[in-house]
This record gives sequence, C-alpha cells and structure tokens, in this order.
Amino acid sequence: MSIPVVDFWFDFGSTYSYPAAIRAPACAAKIGVSIRYRPFLLGPIFKAQGWDTSPFNIYEAKGRYMWRDLERVCAELSIPFRRPEPFPQDSLLAARVAIAGRNESWHDDYCRAVFRAQFGEGLRIDDTTVIAGILHRAGAPASWLEQAGSDDVKRVLRTETEQARQLGIFGAPSFITPDGELFWGNDRLDTALAWAKGTAAATA
Amino acid sequence: MSIPVVDFWFDFGSTYSYPAAIRAPACAAKIGVSIRYRPFLLGPIFKAQGWDTSPFNIYEAKGRYMWRDLERVCAELSIPFRRPEPFPQDSLLAARVAIAGRNESWHDDYCRAVFRAQFGEGLRIDDTTVIAGILHRAGAPASWLEQAGSDDVKRVLRTETEQARQLGIFGAPSFITPDGELFWGNDRLDTALAWAKGTAAATA
Repeated sequence: MSIPVVDFWFDFGSTYSYPAAIRAPACAAKIGVSIRYRPFLLGPIFKAQGWDTSPFNIYEAKGRYMWRDLERVCAELSIPFRRPEPFPQDSLLAARVAIAGRNESWHDDYCRAVFRAQFGEGLRIDDTTVIAGILHRAGAPASWLEQAGSDDVKRVLRTETEQARQLGIFGAPSFITPDGELFWGNDRLDTALAWAKGTAAATA
Repeated sequence: MSIPVVDFWFDFGSTYSYPAAIRAPACAAKIGVSIRYRPFLLGPIFKAQGWDTSPFNIYEAKGRYMWRDLERVCAELSIPFRRPEPFPQDSLLAARVAIAGRNESWHDDYCRAVFRAQFGEGLRIDDTTVIAGILHRAGAPASWLEQAGSDDVKRVLRTETEQARQLGIFGAPSFITPDGELFWGNDRLDTALAWAKGTAAATA
C-alpha cells in the first residue's frame, strides 16, 4: 500500500504557512502520510478578490489578532518568531527558486529555511543575498538563482498559481488530499492528514 | 480556587459558532473551565469593515469552502447539518431573546437550540414561531418574546456589540480568556480553554 500524499499549497509570504511548514513533516510522518510543498502566489488570487495587499493589512482588527495569535502559535511550537517588515514580503524570488529546484533534494529544506528566515529572523526574502545564503546552507549551488529567472520557471509558477485557483484555494496554507478535499489553515493540517490517511485506508 | 470563565462571543447567524456552541460545554467541563455565552451582532462590525453581508457570500471560493468544511466538522461531531436559506439569517430576534433571558436558567439551552434549529434543521431563526417553539422546549414562558422587545434589551445588545468591537472581535466564534486573550474560530476553542486553565493555574 502506497503512502498517501497531501499537497501543501502556500505562498512564502503567508504568516500561518510558517508554523504549518515547519511542523508538517513530523505531523505527516507520525500519521503515515507524505506531504508535498507546492508554492504559488497569493497575489493574483487576492487581486481577483479585490485586494491589493494582505487582508491582514486591510482589516485592522483581524491583522492585530493574527500577529498576536502567530506569536502564541510559535511559542507553543517552540519556534522563533519575529515580525517581518514590510509585510507582506514580495515572495516572487523565493517562489521562483523553489519552483526551479522542485525536483532537487534540497527543495524541502529550502522552503522551510525561507519561512524561518522571514518569520523567525525577520529577514527580507526579496533580498537575493538572503536567498543565496539559504541556498548555500541547504547545499545548493548559487547557480539556482539564475535558473530561477528562466522562462520555464516563470511559466510553471504561473501554472501552479492558476491550478491553485482552480482547486478553490483562496488563502494559505491550504491542504489538498488525494481525493480532492481542501482544508484551509494551519489549524486544519492535522485534520487534512487524518483525512488522507483515513480515506487511503478505506480504499486500500 | 475558582473556576476560570471563558467568554464565548457569537452571532446566532455565524456558521462555525454552531459546532463551537454545541461542543463547548463538554470541552470546558473536561478541562475544568466554565464558558459564558455572549451573543452580539456581527452586522455592525462587518459594516465597519465595508461588508453588507457575510464575507462567505462576498468571497465565493471562501464561501464554497466553508459550507463543505462545516459539513465535515458536523459529521465528525455527529451533529446534524442542514444549510439554511437564506444565509445569513437575520439574528436580531434570537439575540434579543437571549439577552432578555441572560440571567435565566434556560439561557444556555436556548442558545444551543437556536443553533441546532438553524444549522441542524434549516429553520429560520427570524421566525417568531420558531423562537417561541425553542423557548417552550427550553421551559421558558412565551412572555420572554415580549421582554425581548424592551428598550432595555435593545440597549444591552447594542452595548454588548460595542464591547465586542472594543475587545478586538472581528468574527465569530471568538473566545476571551480571563486575562484578556482573544482566540478566534471553532478551531481555537480548545486552545482558548487550555490557555484559561493554564494561566489560572499559574496565578493560583
């Protein structure tokens, strides 16, 4: 019986995607499910909803709540938290590098390291030096920064974003189970994993 | 040592407040915390955010997701689910009756029964007959329907709604712990209860 795979869709600038990305591998392994990181861009999806920035900036009370809640969530997971400035960060460069390296062994470490740099250390992920440092620590040659600028990578990132929209994704993190169920939010990660495991067992 | 009380703020028309209201008493009792139902009106708070209806109606993908997710949540809790029409319901009458009876023994049963009627049976909670039936089954005389129309009740409901806004509440269900921490959403109920218990223990 093969291990069910849950797609973990996220934008690198998404706040709650940080704790979700960090804890996902252990949660998934514990329950016997595999996760696949699928970066996309929330910007075009937000724009279609009439937003030109994060809803956490547009709706003040919601934003104030989110920052306090994220602080609590990180404390509970014992992971560092530092609010990045500006928010949201431009996640295009980070996403393109991830797409370029999507079949490489360093891909998952890189994804988590981008989140840690941004929300754990308050670094800017639109800074080429920051991304180069992350690649270096993940054991990837700096040449991936150039690959990230290729037409192919740009096309794939656009396609991934369009696919996210077509799957009904409207925020991040979002999880899609093998049978197509969507779960939204860090709080729903465990439910998504249990769903994937349960339906896999039921059809085995 | 006294039992900590968590305020459970909700609008009777709020979808995720239904499972939260139903499961809250057992969750709270299990952990040694007490909950207090605090109905208010989301309408004025949404209006201040520029919305003239539920965000689940304004943002189509989010709404589609919510209905499916609510169905799954109810199935997991083994509580009935039926999507009410129209959505959102006008929750003013239901809220005024709850405010009128806020110090009565039937208050909590009434609150849960309104949610069950609406989201479990698909009934209209702006229908006086529906509310009268709920009062009757909760053992409350029908005269409470008249009390609900008093100036005092109207004033208290406005005050409660304004207090919710001042507490930073922007959606429902929302939970406020004795030390003033806000937790938003059915998914965060258990965290709010644990927080209340933990800080109470720490300061005992």
